[in-house]
Amino acid sequence: MPQDSYLVGLIGSGIGPSLSPALHEREAVRQGLRLVYRLLDLDVLGVPPSAVGRLVRAARDTGYDGLNITHPCKQLVIEHLDALSPQAEALGAVNTVVFRDGRATGHNTDVTGFATSFARGLPDVPMESVVQLGAGGAGAAVAHALLTLGTGRLTVVDALADRAADLAAALERHFGPGRAAARVPAGLPALLPPADGLVHATPTGMAAHPGLPLPARLLRPRLWVAEVVYRPLETELLRTARASGCATLDGGGMAAFQAADAFRLFTGREPGSARMLADIAELAAGAPGAAGAWN
Amino acid sequence: MPQDSYLVGLIGSGIGPSLSPALHEREAVRQGLRLVYRLLDLDVLGVPPSAVGRLVRAARDTGYDGLNITHPCKQLVIEHLDALSPQAEALGAVNTVVFRDGRATGHNTDVTGFATSFARGLPDVPMESVVQLGAGGAGAAVAHALLTLGTGRLTVVDALADRAADLAAALERHFGPGRAAARVPAGLPALLPPADGLVHATPTGMAAHPGLPLPARLLRPRLWVAEVVYRPLETELLRTARASGCATLDGGGMAAFQAADAFRLFTGREPGSARMLADIAELAAGAPGAAGAWN
Repeated sequence: MPQDSYLVGLIGSGIGPSLSPALHEREAVRQGLRLVYRLLDLDVLGVPPSAVGRLVRAARDTGYDGLNITHPCKQLVIEHLDALSPQAEALGAVNTVVFRDGRATGHNTDVTGFATSFARGLPDVPMESVVQLGAGGAGAAVAHALLTLGTGRLTVVDALADRAADLAAALERHFGPGRAAARVPAGLPALLPPADGLVHATPTGMAAHPGLPLPARLLRPRLWVAEVVYRPLETELLRTARASGCATLDGGGMAAFQAADAFRLFTGREPGSARMLADIAELAAGAPGAAGAWN
Repeated sequence: MPQDSYLVGLIGSGIGPSLSPALHEREAVRQGLRLVYRLLDLDVLGVPPSAVGRLVRAARDTGYDGLNITHPCKQLVIEHLDALSPQAEALGAVNTVVFRDGRATGHNTDVTGFATSFARGLPDVPMESVVQLGAGGAGAAVAHALLTLGTGRLTVVDALADRAADLAAALERHFGPGRAAARVPAGLPALLPPADGLVHATPTGMAAHPGLPLPARLLRPRLWVAEVVYRPLETELLRTARASGCATLDGGGMAAFQAADAFRLFTGREPGSARMLADIAELAAGAPGAAGAWN
Protein backbone atom coordinates (compact mmCIF):
# COMPACT_ATOMS: atom_id res chain seq x y z
CA MET A 1 0.00 0.00 0.00
CA PRO A 2 1.55 3.34 -0.94
CA GLN A 3 1.93 5.78 1.92
CA ASP A 4 -0.93 8.23 1.81
CA SER A 5 0.21 10.96 4.18
CA TYR A 6 3.49 12.62 5.05
CA LEU A 7 4.56 14.42 8.19
CA VAL A 8 7.70 16.55 8.06
CA GLY A 9 9.07 19.63 9.78
CA LEU A 10 11.93 22.06 10.27
CA ILE A 11 14.11 22.39 13.37
CA GLY A 12 15.96 25.67 13.82
CA SER A 13 16.02 29.04 15.48
CA GLY A 14 13.86 31.97 14.39
CA ILE A 15 12.32 29.99 11.53
CA GLY A 16 8.92 31.64 11.54
CA PRO A 17 9.46 33.28 8.12
CA SER A 18 10.71 30.03 6.50
CA LEU A 19 9.30 29.29 3.05
CA SER A 20 9.82 25.54 3.51
CA PRO A 21 6.30 24.75 4.77
CA ALA A 22 4.73 26.47 1.77
CA LEU A 23 7.19 24.94 -0.72
CA HIS A 24 6.63 21.38 0.47
CA GLU A 25 2.90 21.68 1.06
CA ARG A 26 2.24 23.29 -2.34
CA GLU A 27 4.15 20.58 -4.17
CA ALA A 28 2.35 17.89 -2.18
CA VAL A 29 -1.03 19.36 -3.08
CA ARG A 30 -0.07 19.35 -6.76
CA GLN A 31 0.88 15.69 -6.46
CA GLY A 32 -2.31 14.80 -4.60
CA LEU A 33 -0.40 13.93 -1.41
CA ARG A 34 -1.55 14.82 2.09
CA LEU A 35 1.52 16.44 3.68
CA VAL A 36 1.80 18.44 6.88
CA TYR A 37 4.94 20.53 7.48
CA ARG A 38 5.48 21.81 11.02
CA LEU A 39 7.95 24.38 12.39
CA LEU A 40 9.87 23.18 15.45
CA ASP A 41 11.34 26.55 16.42
CA LEU A 42 13.88 26.49 19.24
CA ASP A 43 12.94 30.06 20.15
CA VAL A 44 9.22 29.30 20.33
CA LEU A 45 9.87 26.13 22.34
CA GLY A 46 12.28 28.01 24.60
CA VAL A 47 14.99 25.36 24.31
CA PRO A 48 18.72 25.64 23.50
CA PRO A 49 20.29 24.31 20.27
CA SER A 50 21.51 21.28 22.22
CA ALA A 51 17.85 20.17 22.44
CA VAL A 52 18.01 19.14 18.79
CA GLY A 53 18.67 15.53 19.81
CA ARG A 54 15.56 15.42 21.96
CA LEU A 55 13.48 17.02 19.19
CA VAL A 56 14.74 14.55 16.57
CA ARG A 57 13.82 11.72 18.91
CA ALA A 58 10.42 13.31 19.55
CA ALA A 59 9.76 13.61 15.84
CA ARG A 60 10.77 10.02 15.25
CA ASP A 61 8.57 8.77 18.10
CA THR A 62 5.56 10.76 16.93
CA GLY A 63 5.56 9.39 13.41
CA TYR A 64 7.45 12.01 11.43
CA ASP A 65 8.77 10.89 8.05
CA GLY A 66 11.61 13.38 8.11
CA LEU A 67 12.93 16.79 9.11
CA ASN A 68 14.74 19.72 7.65
CA ILE A 69 17.44 21.11 9.93
CA THR A 70 18.72 24.66 9.84
CA HIS A 71 20.79 27.11 11.85
CA PRO A 72 22.06 26.54 14.53
CA CYS A 73 21.59 22.76 14.45
CA LYS A 74 23.10 21.51 11.18
CA GLN A 75 26.25 20.22 12.88
CA LEU A 76 24.76 19.49 16.31
CA VAL A 77 22.22 17.09 14.85
CA ILE A 78 24.81 14.69 13.46
CA GLU A 79 25.57 12.78 16.65
CA HIS A 80 21.86 11.93 16.96
CA LEU A 81 21.62 10.19 13.57
CA ASP A 82 22.30 6.60 12.51
CA ALA A 83 23.87 7.31 9.11
CA LEU A 84 24.93 10.13 6.78
CA SER A 85 24.82 10.60 3.02
CA PRO A 86 28.20 11.16 1.32
CA GLN A 87 27.51 14.90 0.93
CA ALA A 88 26.49 15.33 4.55
CA GLU A 89 29.47 13.33 5.72
CA ALA A 90 31.93 15.31 3.59
CA LEU A 91 30.45 18.63 4.67
CA GLY A 92 29.92 17.73 8.30
CA ALA A 93 26.48 19.34 8.13
CA VAL A 94 22.95 18.01 7.72
CA ASN A 95 19.91 19.91 6.49
CA THR A 96 17.60 16.95 5.91
CA VAL A 97 16.89 13.90 8.06
CA VAL A 98 14.89 10.92 6.81
CA PHE A 99 13.30 8.40 9.18
CA ARG A 100 12.90 5.05 7.48
CA ASP A 101 12.88 1.46 8.72
CA GLY A 102 13.75 2.62 12.21
CA ARG A 103 16.86 4.54 11.10
CA ALA A 104 17.56 8.27 10.95
CA THR A 105 19.76 9.24 7.99
CA GLY A 106 21.22 12.71 7.47
CA HIS A 107 21.48 14.31 4.04
CA ASN A 108 22.57 17.70 2.76
CA THR A 109 20.37 19.06 0.02
CA ASP A 110 21.97 22.50 0.28
CA VAL A 111 24.92 20.90 -1.54
CA THR A 112 22.85 19.03 -4.10
CA GLY A 113 20.42 21.95 -4.45
CA PHE A 114 23.14 24.48 -5.27
CA ALA A 115 24.82 22.00 -7.63
CA THR A 116 21.58 21.46 -9.54
CA SER A 117 20.83 25.16 -9.69
CA PHE A 118 24.32 25.98 -10.91
CA ALA A 119 24.47 23.26 -13.55
CA ARG A 120 21.07 24.39 -14.80
CA GLY A 121 21.55 28.16 -14.60
CA LEU A 122 25.18 28.62 -15.60
CA PRO A 123 25.98 25.63 -17.83
CA ASP A 124 29.39 25.53 -19.48
CA VAL A 125 30.87 28.56 -17.73
CA PRO A 126 34.62 28.39 -17.06
CA MET A 127 35.41 27.18 -13.53
CA GLU A 128 39.18 27.08 -13.36
CA SER A 129 39.34 29.80 -10.74
CA VAL A 130 36.37 30.78 -8.58
CA VAL A 131 36.14 33.27 -5.72
CA GLN A 132 33.55 32.71 -3.01
CA LEU A 133 32.44 35.32 -0.49
CA GLY A 134 31.33 33.82 2.80
CA ALA A 135 32.59 30.80 4.74
CA GLY A 136 29.56 30.23 6.97
CA GLY A 137 27.15 27.32 6.81
CA ALA A 138 25.69 28.12 3.41
CA GLY A 139 29.20 28.94 2.17
CA ALA A 140 30.51 25.55 3.18
CA ALA A 141 27.69 23.78 1.33
CA VAL A 142 28.19 25.90 -1.79
CA ALA A 143 31.97 25.36 -1.72
CA HIS A 144 31.50 21.59 -1.64
CA ALA A 145 29.11 21.80 -4.55
CA LEU A 146 31.48 24.00 -6.58
CA LEU A 147 34.46 21.69 -6.12
CA THR A 148 32.32 18.64 -6.86
CA LEU A 149 31.14 20.35 -10.06
CA GLY A 150 34.77 20.73 -11.18
CA THR A 151 35.97 24.09 -9.93
CA GLY A 152 39.77 24.01 -10.32
CA ARG A 153 40.65 26.26 -7.43
CA LEU A 154 38.22 27.89 -5.01
CA THR A 155 39.31 30.91 -2.98
CA VAL A 156 37.15 31.42 0.09
CA VAL A 157 36.95 35.01 1.31
CA ASP A 158 35.58 35.88 4.74
CA ALA A 159 36.09 38.77 7.13
CA LEU A 160 36.58 36.10 9.79
CA ALA A 161 40.01 34.89 8.66
CA ASP A 162 39.96 31.77 10.83
CA ARG A 163 36.60 30.69 9.48
CA ALA A 164 37.85 31.03 5.90
CA ALA A 165 41.05 29.16 6.72
CA ASP A 166 39.19 26.34 8.45
CA LEU A 167 36.85 25.88 5.50
CA ALA A 168 39.69 25.95 2.97
CA ALA A 169 41.63 23.38 4.99
CA ALA A 170 38.58 21.11 5.19
CA LEU A 171 38.02 21.45 1.44
CA GLU A 172 41.64 20.56 0.68
CA ARG A 173 41.43 17.52 2.94
CA HIS A 174 38.40 16.33 1.02
CA PHE A 175 39.13 17.44 -2.55
CA GLY A 176 42.94 17.44 -2.52
CA PRO A 177 45.78 19.92 -2.06
CA GLY A 178 45.72 23.07 -4.15
CA ARG A 179 41.93 23.02 -4.66
CA ALA A 180 41.11 25.66 -2.02
CA ALA A 181 42.60 28.77 -0.43
CA ALA A 182 41.50 31.36 2.13
CA ARG A 183 41.67 35.15 2.00
CA VAL A 184 40.22 38.18 3.80
CA PRO A 185 38.14 40.77 1.85
CA ALA A 186 41.12 43.10 1.46
CA GLY A 187 42.49 40.58 -1.04
CA LEU A 188 39.51 40.87 -3.42
CA PRO A 189 40.97 43.55 -5.76
CA ALA A 190 43.84 41.17 -6.54
CA LEU A 191 41.75 37.99 -6.61
CA LEU A 192 38.91 38.98 -8.91
CA PRO A 193 40.59 40.18 -12.11
CA PRO A 194 41.98 36.73 -12.98
CA ALA A 195 38.89 34.80 -11.67
CA ASP A 196 36.31 33.07 -13.87
CA GLY A 197 33.46 33.49 -11.43
CA LEU A 198 32.23 34.90 -8.14
CA VAL A 199 29.87 33.15 -5.73
CA HIS A 200 28.22 35.18 -3.00
CA ALA A 201 27.29 33.35 0.23
CA THR A 202 26.98 36.04 2.91
CA PRO A 203 23.72 37.65 4.14
CA THR A 204 24.50 40.98 2.44
CA GLY A 205 21.68 41.94 0.11
CA MET A 206 18.90 40.52 2.26
CA ALA A 207 16.32 42.99 3.53
CA ALA A 208 18.04 43.21 6.92
CA HIS A 209 21.49 43.59 5.35
CA PRO A 210 21.10 45.81 2.29
CA GLY A 211 23.98 46.80 0.06
CA LEU A 212 26.74 45.30 -2.03
CA PRO A 213 29.14 42.70 -0.60
CA LEU A 214 32.09 44.06 -2.62
CA PRO A 215 33.04 47.20 -4.59
CA ALA A 216 31.05 47.43 -7.82
CA ARG A 217 34.19 48.26 -9.80
CA LEU A 218 35.43 44.67 -9.29
CA LEU A 219 32.59 43.33 -11.48
CA ARG A 220 33.37 43.02 -15.21
CA PRO A 221 31.74 41.40 -18.27
CA ARG A 222 33.68 38.11 -18.35
CA LEU A 223 33.02 37.34 -14.67
CA TRP A 224 30.00 35.18 -13.92
CA VAL A 225 28.22 35.85 -10.61
CA ALA A 226 26.18 33.35 -8.59
CA GLU A 227 24.08 34.55 -5.66
CA VAL A 228 22.90 32.50 -2.70
CA VAL A 229 20.59 35.12 -1.14
CA TYR A 230 17.03 34.62 -2.45
CA ARG A 231 15.00 37.05 -0.36
CA PRO A 232 14.83 39.26 -2.32
CA LEU A 233 15.43 37.23 -5.44
CA GLU A 234 16.86 40.30 -7.13
CA THR A 235 19.70 41.52 -4.90
CA GLU A 236 21.75 44.65 -5.39
CA LEU A 237 24.70 42.40 -6.31
CA LEU A 238 22.74 40.74 -9.12
CA ARG A 239 21.45 44.06 -10.43
CA THR A 240 24.93 45.57 -10.43
CA ALA A 241 26.52 42.47 -11.94
CA ARG A 242 24.01 42.35 -14.78
CA ALA A 243 24.54 46.05 -15.42
CA SER A 244 28.27 45.28 -15.59
CA GLY A 245 27.67 42.62 -18.26
CA CYS A 246 28.09 39.55 -16.04
CA ALA A 247 26.22 36.30 -16.54
CA THR A 248 24.27 35.77 -13.28
CA LEU A 249 22.47 33.13 -11.28
CA ASP A 250 20.02 34.10 -8.54
CA GLY A 251 19.57 32.32 -5.22
CA GLY A 252 16.10 31.02 -5.99
CA GLY A 253 17.43 27.90 -7.66
CA MET A 254 19.36 26.73 -4.62
CA ALA A 255 16.33 27.40 -2.41
CA ALA A 256 13.98 25.56 -4.76
CA PHE A 257 16.23 22.59 -5.51
CA GLN A 258 17.28 22.01 -1.90
CA ALA A 259 13.54 21.79 -1.12
CA ALA A 260 12.90 19.61 -4.17
CA ASP A 261 15.70 17.23 -3.18
CA ALA A 262 14.34 17.05 0.37
CA PHE A 263 10.82 16.44 -0.98
CA ARG A 264 12.15 13.51 -3.02
CA LEU A 265 13.89 12.10 0.06
CA PHE A 266 10.80 12.53 2.27
CA THR A 267 8.20 11.16 -0.11
CA GLY A 268 10.02 9.07 -2.71
CA ARG A 269 8.13 11.11 -5.34
CA GLU A 270 9.78 13.10 -8.09
CA PRO A 271 9.13 16.78 -7.39
CA GLY A 272 8.14 19.26 -10.05
CA SER A 273 11.29 21.37 -9.73
CA ALA A 274 10.20 24.01 -12.23
CA ARG A 275 6.98 24.52 -10.30
CA MET A 276 8.91 24.79 -7.03
CA LEU A 277 11.18 27.39 -8.66
CA ALA A 278 8.12 29.39 -9.64
CA ASP A 279 6.85 29.06 -6.06
CA ILE A 280 10.13 30.48 -4.74
CA ALA A 281 9.81 33.48 -7.02
CA GLU A 282 6.27 34.10 -5.84
CA LEU A 283 6.90 33.42 -2.14
CA ALA A 284 10.21 35.30 -1.96
CA ALA A 285 8.50 38.35 -3.39
CA GLY A 286 5.88 38.26 -0.68
CA ALA A 287 7.85 37.74 2.51
CA PRO A 288 10.95 39.28 4.05
CA GLY A 289 13.61 36.70 4.83
CA ALA A 290 15.19 35.74 8.11
CA ALA A 291 18.91 36.43 8.11
CA GLY A 292 20.89 33.29 7.52
CA ALA A 293 17.92 30.99 6.94
CA TRP A 294 18.36 29.01 3.75
CA ASN A 295 15.71 26.42 4.57
CA MET B 1 -5.66 33.36 9.21
CA PRO B 2 -7.55 30.09 9.70
CA GLN B 3 -5.37 27.10 10.44
CA ASP B 4 -4.87 25.15 7.24
CA SER B 5 -3.43 21.87 8.47
CA TYR B 6 -3.98 19.61 11.47
CA LEU B 7 -1.68 17.06 13.06
CA VAL B 8 -3.17 14.56 15.49
CA GLY B 9 -2.47 11.03 16.67
CA LEU B 10 -3.34 8.16 18.97
CA ILE B 11 -1.24 6.88 21.88
CA GLY B 12 -1.92 3.35 23.05
CA SER B 13 -0.88 -0.28 22.93
CA GLY B 14 -1.60 -2.55 19.98
CA ILE B 15 -3.44 0.16 18.08
CA GLY B 16 -2.51 -0.94 14.58
CA PRO B 17 -6.12 -1.91 13.70
CA SER B 18 -7.57 1.38 15.03
CA LEU B 19 -10.19 3.00 12.82
CA SER B 20 -9.42 6.47 14.21
CA PRO B 21 -6.92 7.49 11.49
CA ALA B 22 -9.43 6.66 8.75
CA LEU B 23 -12.35 8.29 10.60
CA HIS B 24 -10.55 11.58 11.17
CA GLU B 25 -8.78 11.72 7.82
CA ARG B 26 -11.96 10.96 5.84
CA GLU B 27 -13.91 13.67 7.62
CA ALA B 28 -11.06 16.14 7.10
CA VAL B 29 -10.95 15.39 3.38
CA ARG B 30 -14.71 16.00 3.15
CA GLN B 31 -14.23 19.35 4.88
CA GLY B 32 -11.28 20.30 2.67
CA LEU B 33 -8.84 20.21 5.60
CA ARG B 34 -5.32 18.81 5.41
CA LEU B 35 -5.14 16.48 8.41
CA VAL B 36 -2.55 13.84 9.26
CA TYR B 37 -3.35 11.25 11.93
CA ARG B 38 -0.43 9.20 13.27
CA LEU B 39 -0.37 6.07 15.45
CA LEU B 40 2.01 6.31 18.42
CA ASP B 41 1.93 2.64 19.39
CA LEU B 42 3.71 1.76 22.64
CA ASP B 43 4.36 -1.75 21.31
CA VAL B 44 5.90 -0.52 18.07
CA LEU B 45 8.00 2.06 19.93
CA GLY B 46 9.00 -0.56 22.48
CA VAL B 47 8.21 1.67 25.45
CA PRO B 48 6.15 1.02 28.61
CA PRO B 49 2.81 2.72 29.35
CA SER B 50 4.63 5.10 31.69
CA ALA B 51 6.26 6.64 28.58
CA VAL B 52 2.94 8.37 27.84
CA GLY B 53 4.20 11.56 29.49
CA ARG B 54 7.25 11.68 27.28
CA LEU B 55 5.14 11.01 24.18
CA VAL B 56 2.64 13.74 25.05
CA ARG B 57 5.55 16.15 25.50
CA ALA B 58 7.06 14.97 22.21
CA ALA B 59 3.78 15.53 20.38
CA ARG B 60 3.40 18.98 21.88
CA ASP B 61 6.99 19.93 20.96
CA THR B 62 6.62 18.67 17.41
CA GLY B 63 3.56 20.72 16.59
CA TYR B 64 0.69 18.31 17.22
CA ASP B 65 -2.74 19.89 17.63
CA GLY B 66 -3.99 17.05 19.79
CA LEU B 67 -3.99 13.36 20.63
CA ASN B 68 -6.39 10.55 21.26
CA ILE B 69 -5.39 8.34 24.16
CA THR B 70 -6.42 4.73 24.60
CA HIS B 71 -5.59 1.63 26.64
CA PRO B 72 -3.45 1.48 28.76
CA CYS B 73 -2.82 5.22 29.07
CA LYS B 74 -6.20 6.86 29.75
CA GLN B 75 -5.49 7.30 33.46
CA LEU B 76 -1.70 7.54 33.26
CA VAL B 77 -1.83 10.53 30.95
CA ILE B 78 -3.67 12.75 33.43
CA GLU B 79 -0.68 13.84 35.50
CA HIS B 80 0.98 15.16 32.33
CA LEU B 81 -1.85 17.56 31.43
CA ASP B 82 -2.55 21.14 32.46
CA ALA B 83 -6.34 20.92 32.73
CA LEU B 84 -9.29 18.50 32.44
CA SER B 85 -12.81 18.81 31.07
CA PRO B 86 -15.61 18.12 33.58
CA GLN B 87 -16.28 14.68 32.05
CA ALA B 88 -12.61 13.68 32.12
CA GLU B 89 -12.26 14.92 35.68
CA ALA B 90 -15.36 13.09 36.88
CA LEU B 91 -14.33 9.87 35.17
CA GLY B 92 -10.63 10.09 35.96
CA ALA B 93 -9.87 9.07 32.38
CA VAL B 94 -8.87 10.97 29.26
CA ASN B 95 -9.26 9.82 25.67
CA THR B 96 -8.58 13.15 23.95
CA VAL B 97 -5.90 15.78 24.57
CA VAL B 98 -5.96 19.20 22.94
CA PHE B 99 -2.87 21.40 22.71
CA ARG B 100 -3.83 25.06 22.50
CA ASP B 101 -2.13 28.27 23.60
CA GLY B 102 0.64 26.31 25.25
CA ARG B 103 -1.73 24.24 27.41
CA ALA B 104 -2.64 20.54 27.25
CA THR B 105 -6.26 19.88 28.18
CA GLY B 106 -7.74 16.41 28.66
CA HIS B 107 -11.24 15.50 27.53
CA ASN B 108 -13.30 12.33 27.44
CA THR B 109 -15.31 11.89 24.28
CA ASP B 110 -16.11 8.27 25.13
CA VAL B 111 -18.56 9.75 27.64
CA THR B 112 -19.99 12.38 25.31
CA GLY B 113 -19.89 9.99 22.34
CA PHE B 114 -21.93 7.32 24.09
CA ALA B 115 -24.35 9.92 25.44
CA THR B 116 -24.96 11.32 21.96
CA SER B 117 -25.37 7.87 20.46
CA PHE B 118 -27.81 6.81 23.16
CA ALA B 119 -29.93 9.95 23.04
CA ARG B 120 -30.12 9.63 19.27
CA GLY B 121 -30.62 5.87 18.98
CA LEU B 122 -32.84 5.08 21.97
CA PRO B 123 -34.74 8.30 22.65
CA ASP B 124 -37.42 8.24 25.33
CA VAL B 125 -36.71 4.73 26.60
CA PRO B 126 -37.36 4.20 30.33
CA MET B 127 -34.17 4.53 32.40
CA GLU B 128 -35.27 4.02 35.99
CA SER B 129 -33.28 0.82 36.36
CA VAL B 130 -30.41 -0.08 34.05
CA VAL B 131 -28.01 -3.04 34.20
CA GLN B 132 -24.56 -2.66 32.75
CA LEU B 133 -22.21 -5.54 31.94
CA GLY B 134 -18.54 -4.59 32.24
CA ALA B 135 -16.74 -2.25 34.62
CA GLY B 136 -13.54 -1.68 32.61
CA GLY B 137 -12.46 1.51 30.92
CA ALA B 138 -15.27 1.65 28.37
CA GLY B 139 -17.71 0.57 31.06
CA ALA B 140 -16.73 3.47 33.30
CA ALA B 141 -17.25 5.97 30.48
CA VAL B 142 -20.62 4.49 29.56
CA ALA B 143 -21.75 4.42 33.20
CA HIS B 144 -20.98 8.13 33.59
CA ALA B 145 -22.91 8.87 30.42
CA LEU B 146 -25.92 6.79 31.55
CA LEU B 147 -26.18 8.49 34.93
CA THR B 148 -25.70 11.91 33.33
CA LEU B 149 -28.52 11.07 30.92
CA GLY B 150 -30.84 10.39 33.87
CA THR B 151 -30.57 6.72 34.68
CA GLY B 152 -32.21 6.30 38.11
CA ARG B 153 -30.13 3.40 39.34
CA LEU B 154 -27.31 1.68 37.47
CA THR B 155 -26.21 -1.80 38.48
CA VAL B 156 -22.70 -2.58 37.31
CA VAL B 157 -22.00 -6.28 36.74
CA ASP B 158 -18.48 -7.59 36.34
CA ALA B 159 -16.84 -10.97 36.94
CA LEU B 160 -14.16 -8.98 38.78
CA ALA B 161 -16.20 -8.11 41.88
CA ASP B 162 -13.71 -5.53 43.14
CA ARG B 163 -13.69 -3.71 39.83
CA ALA B 164 -17.48 -3.50 39.81
CA ALA B 165 -17.53 -2.34 43.44
CA ASP B 166 -14.89 0.32 42.81
CA LEU B 167 -16.77 1.71 39.83
CA ALA B 168 -20.10 1.72 41.69
CA ALA B 169 -18.51 3.51 44.64
CA ALA B 170 -16.96 6.13 42.34
CA LEU B 171 -20.31 6.65 40.60
CA GLU B 172 -22.11 7.11 43.92
CA ARG B 173 -19.51 9.65 45.05
CA HIS B 174 -20.10 11.65 41.90
CA PHE B 175 -23.85 11.18 41.26
CA GLY B 176 -25.08 10.60 44.81
CA PRO B 177 -26.00 7.67 47.08
CA GLY B 178 -28.38 5.04 45.71
CA ARG B 179 -27.55 5.77 42.05
CA ALA B 180 -25.20 2.79 41.55
CA ALA B 181 -24.66 -0.76 42.78
CA ALA B 182 -22.27 -3.61 41.98
CA ARG B 183 -23.00 -7.28 41.30
CA VAL B 184 -21.28 -10.35 39.87
CA PRO B 185 -22.74 -12.16 36.81
CA ALA B 186 -24.45 -14.79 38.98
CA GLY B 187 -26.88 -12.05 39.99
CA LEU B 188 -28.13 -11.40 36.45
CA PRO B 189 -31.17 -13.74 36.54
CA ALA B 190 -32.54 -11.73 39.45
CA LEU B 191 -31.44 -8.32 38.14
CA LEU B 192 -32.75 -8.37 34.59
CA PRO B 193 -36.47 -9.13 34.94
CA PRO B 194 -37.25 -5.82 36.66
CA ALA B 195 -34.72 -3.78 34.62
CA ASP B 196 -35.61 -1.25 31.90
CA GLY B 197 -32.44 -1.72 29.90
CA LEU B 198 -29.17 -3.56 29.49
CA VAL B 199 -25.89 -2.00 28.40
CA HIS B 200 -23.09 -4.27 27.29
CA ALA B 201 -19.53 -3.02 27.79
CA THR B 202 -17.28 -6.11 27.76
CA PRO B 203 -15.27 -7.44 24.78
CA THR B 204 -17.59 -10.44 24.29
CA GLY B 205 -18.94 -10.47 20.76
CA MET B 206 -15.78 -9.14 19.14
CA ALA B 207 -14.07 -11.39 16.61
CA ALA B 208 -11.55 -12.53 19.22
CA HIS B 209 -14.24 -13.12 21.86
CA PRO B 210 -17.27 -14.58 20.10
CA GLY B 211 -20.45 -15.52 21.87
CA LEU B 212 -23.13 -14.05 24.10
CA PRO B 213 -22.25 -12.18 27.31
CA LEU B 214 -25.30 -13.52 29.13
CA PRO B 215 -27.91 -16.29 28.78
CA ALA B 216 -30.26 -15.57 25.87
CA ARG B 217 -33.29 -16.44 27.99
CA LEU B 218 -32.74 -13.28 30.06
CA LEU B 219 -33.62 -11.12 27.03
CA ARG B 220 -37.29 -10.17 26.69
CA PRO B 221 -39.35 -7.75 24.58
CA ARG B 222 -39.63 -4.85 27.05
CA LEU B 223 -35.86 -4.72 27.72
CA TRP B 224 -33.83 -2.31 25.58
CA VAL B 225 -30.25 -3.37 24.81
CA ALA B 226 -27.31 -1.05 24.07
CA GLU B 227 -24.06 -2.52 22.75
CA VAL B 228 -20.59 -0.96 22.99
CA VAL B 229 -18.75 -3.45 20.76
CA TYR B 230 -18.71 -2.17 17.17
CA ARG B 231 -16.43 -4.67 15.43
CA PRO B 232 -18.50 -6.38 14.23
CA LEU B 233 -21.31 -3.86 14.25
CA GLU B 234 -23.83 -6.71 14.41
CA THR B 235 -22.88 -8.76 17.48
CA GLU B 236 -24.47 -12.01 18.57
CA LEU B 237 -25.99 -10.08 21.49
CA LEU B 238 -27.71 -7.60 19.15
CA ARG B 239 -28.96 -10.37 16.86
CA THR B 240 -30.33 -12.34 19.77
CA ALA B 241 -31.83 -9.27 21.43
CA ARG B 242 -33.62 -8.20 18.26
CA ALA B 243 -34.93 -11.72 17.78
CA SER B 244 -36.22 -11.52 21.37
CA GLY B 245 -38.12 -8.32 20.55
CA CYS B 246 -35.78 -5.85 22.26
CA ALA B 247 -35.14 -2.31 21.02
CA THR B 248 -31.42 -2.18 20.34
CA LEU B 249 -28.52 0.26 19.84
CA ASP B 250 -25.30 -0.90 18.20
CA GLY B 251 -21.79 0.23 19.17
CA GLY B 252 -21.15 2.17 15.98
CA GLY B 253 -22.71 5.32 17.36
CA MET B 254 -20.37 5.56 20.32
CA ALA B 255 -17.38 4.92 18.05
CA ALA B 256 -18.50 7.51 15.53
CA PHE B 257 -19.55 10.19 18.00
CA GLN B 258 -16.45 9.89 20.20
CA ALA B 259 -14.43 10.49 17.01
CA ALA B 260 -16.74 13.31 15.93
CA ASP B 261 -16.44 14.99 19.33
CA ALA B 262 -12.63 14.66 19.19
CA PHE B 263 -12.61 16.04 15.64
CA ARG B 264 -14.53 19.09 16.85
CA LEU B 265 -12.06 19.58 19.71
CA PHE B 266 -9.03 19.17 17.42
CA THR B 267 -10.16 21.37 14.55
CA GLY B 268 -12.89 23.64 15.87
CA ARG B 269 -14.99 22.50 12.90
CA GLU B 270 -18.39 20.87 13.16
CA PRO B 271 -18.05 17.26 12.04
CA GLY B 272 -20.55 15.53 9.78
CA SER B 273 -21.63 12.97 12.36
CA ALA B 274 -23.95 11.07 10.04
CA ARG B 275 -21.15 10.65 7.53
CA MET B 276 -18.80 9.44 10.28
CA LEU B 277 -21.46 6.93 11.35
CA ALA B 278 -21.61 5.64 7.79
CA ASP B 279 -17.80 5.43 7.77
CA ILE B 280 -17.88 3.30 10.92
CA ALA B 281 -20.33 0.88 9.33
CA GLU B 282 -18.12 0.59 6.27
CA LEU B 283 -14.80 0.40 8.12
CA ALA B 284 -16.00 -1.95 10.86
CA ALA B 285 -17.21 -4.35 8.20
CA GLY B 286 -13.78 -4.43 6.63
CA ALA B 287 -11.43 -4.86 9.56
CA PRO B 288 -11.27 -7.12 12.59
CA GLY B 289 -11.09 -5.16 15.82
CA ALA B 290 -8.43 -5.06 18.48
CA ALA B 291 -9.77 -6.29 21.80
CA GLY B 292 -10.54 -3.42 24.08
CA ALA B 293 -9.75 -0.65 21.62
CA TRP B 294 -12.57 1.84 21.50
CA ASN B 295 -10.56 4.57 19.81
